[in-house]
Amino acid sequence: MKRKPILVTGAHGFIGRNVARHLSRLGLRVIGVGYGRWSSVDEQKLWGVSEWHSSDITVENLRACEVVPDSIIHCAGSGSVALSIQNPLDDFERNLNTTLNLLEYVRLYAPNAKVIIMSSAAVYGDVEELPMVEGDFLNPISPYGVHKKIAEELCQSYVDHFGLNVSVLRLFSVYGPGLKKQLLWDACNKIIRGEYEFFGTGNELRDWIHIDDVSRMVESLITTSPSNFNLYNGATGIGTSITDILKPLFAALDSKEFATFTGQARQGDPIGYVADISNTRQKLSWEPKIKWQEGVLEYVEWFKSHEID
Amino acid sequence: MKRKPILVTGAHGFIGRNVARHLSRLGLRVIGVGYGRWSSVDEQKLWGVSEWHSSDITVENLRACEVVPDSIIHCAGSGSVALSIQNPLDDFERNLNTTLNLLEYVRLYAPNAKVIIMSSAAVYGDVEELPMVEGDFLNPISPYGVHKKIAEELCQSYVDHFGLNVSVLRLFSVYGPGLKKQLLWDACNKIIRGEYEFFGTGNELRDWIHIDDVSRMVESLITTSPSNFNLYNGATGIGTSITDILKPLFAALDSKEFATFTGQARQGDPIGYVADISNTRQKLSWEPKIKWQEGVLEYVEWFKSHEID
Repeated sequence: MKRKPILVTGAHGFIGRNVARHLSRLGLRVIGVGYGRWSSVDEQKLWGVSEWHSSDITVENLRACEVVPDSIIHCAGSGSVALSIQNPLDDFERNLNTTLNLLEYVRLYAPNAKVIIMSSAAVYGDVEELPMVEGDFLNPISPYGVHKKIAEELCQSYVDHFGLNVSVLRLFSVYGPGLKKQLLWDACNKIIRGEYEFFGTGNELRDWIHIDDVSRMVESLITTSPSNFNLYNGATGIGTSITDILKPLFAALDSKEFATFTGQARQGDPIGYVADISNTRQKLSWEPKIKWQEGVLEYVEWFKSHEID
Repeated sequence: MKRKPILVTGAHGFIGRNVARHLSRLGLRVIGVGYGRWSSVDEQKLWGVSEWHSSDITVENLRACEVVPDSIIHCAGSGSVALSIQNPLDDFERNLNTTLNLLEYVRLYAPNAKVIIMSSAAVYGDVEELPMVEGDFLNPISPYGVHKKIAEELCQSYVDHFGLNVSVLRLFSVYGPGLKKQLLWDACNKIIRGEYEFFGTGNELRDWIHIDDVSRMVESLITTSPSNFNLYNGATGIGTSITDILKPLFAALDSKEFATFTGQARQGDPIGYVADISNTRQKLSWEPKIKWQEGVLEYVEWFKSHEID
């Protein structure tokens, strides 16, 4: 591939920086925009970001990047159900106003760019049966899920009314080395502190997808040419219970104890999130490569080395 | 009724000021907030607005009104399909950010207030059959319709997650003396200029509801106590073609000509908007009182007197 410019919003965040590094290794020129500051230019380059614009995602700030991107990967936004319950207005602004400004920027200044939007399994919410298929009725159970659903509707509107080309990835439980939040991070920290209590029953199913598999999915989207509006589950299709995913964590951290559960679900958390990925497989010629059993061990190894730092 | 405080957003606009006047005549104390300036305090009082706060609809500005309202009638926002196609971001901000800020204000500072939101028939868009029922699948065909649909989803989210009490009125073609935009206004002005060409075929159906009937519907909502989230069509249930509604206009303006039609529908305009109002009738014990034949003649009379001013 030639060095086509790719704009990655939220390129300082966990998903954004991993996608940026993956694309830069393919020879693409990655311009990053969003919140956060790199500790050094070396760190920024290590993550594949050739230019960094530290700013809000607004039409004017995107325009100020002075690039006509070939593709735009929208990774900016909040990813916290709990924060959306505490402060729904803030979640709306971080997830929806950024998406709106991005779409408007594309409409006005980059109408031929491919747009790839990171959505979430939270749009499904409580469904009648698993696995979740892209065409299912959406029933989000948190403000975060509602706002992500609305972001998808805005994408559809810009496709219908202004001819944009937008692909939406509904990401399930993305993890990988460097992720300093969510279950695996919280669990590792609890275990080394000698705390063992977790929310829920332990039987809740999640569909764990390694960040490298997400990055390869984005690569497929950039290189294939789907038309108009596309929805894809970003997952492996395998449901793993919280209990099962915690076992290798406890073992690898040499804990003699095991998790106990409150029995109480956390507000906004559904019982099960498992994807049907036949549509993604077929349309993107993509397969998940990393098994959760390996990915979790890799995560613990990273956690240990990080903890020693 | 006692002089309970009622907050009306957009009280300077056509719907807002009429609702304000109606409620003040019932003995309620109306506080208005939104864009626009009254030509005099007398004009403001004439429209029933006891206090006027000229400001954006933000959480802080609503709080600055220093009232704990019994009910809030949200009439602020843009009502133009055409503008939403020209500038979707502006339409989003005017229709959605105002609604979000209002809901957030209620969540934080007025959790017991009844909230009444003005939505639009545009949320239905192209439907398979008429009349439109509240539970129909929504298929909006303009950014305006999409944004109004999203505003409804936000209302539902605040009801589900934060226990607000919200009623949504899906208004069809609201008209009445003083309305200086949309078909009747444009037609009167064309006719006196000797222009007769109109968009469409003339056979498009609209459901015309007089502003006084809308005001009485709001009164019913304030005095009844529906629970949680409620959706109501605001209409008469009678579909009238553009040709039929223009006839008395041409006659009353002494035109010897009649309308011609381009045959081309305007972007974002569906063929038919006719409501099923059985739900509204039943739940609100409300009936539309003003027949369109009378209402249109009243409108032309107002237009003539206004034109002479």
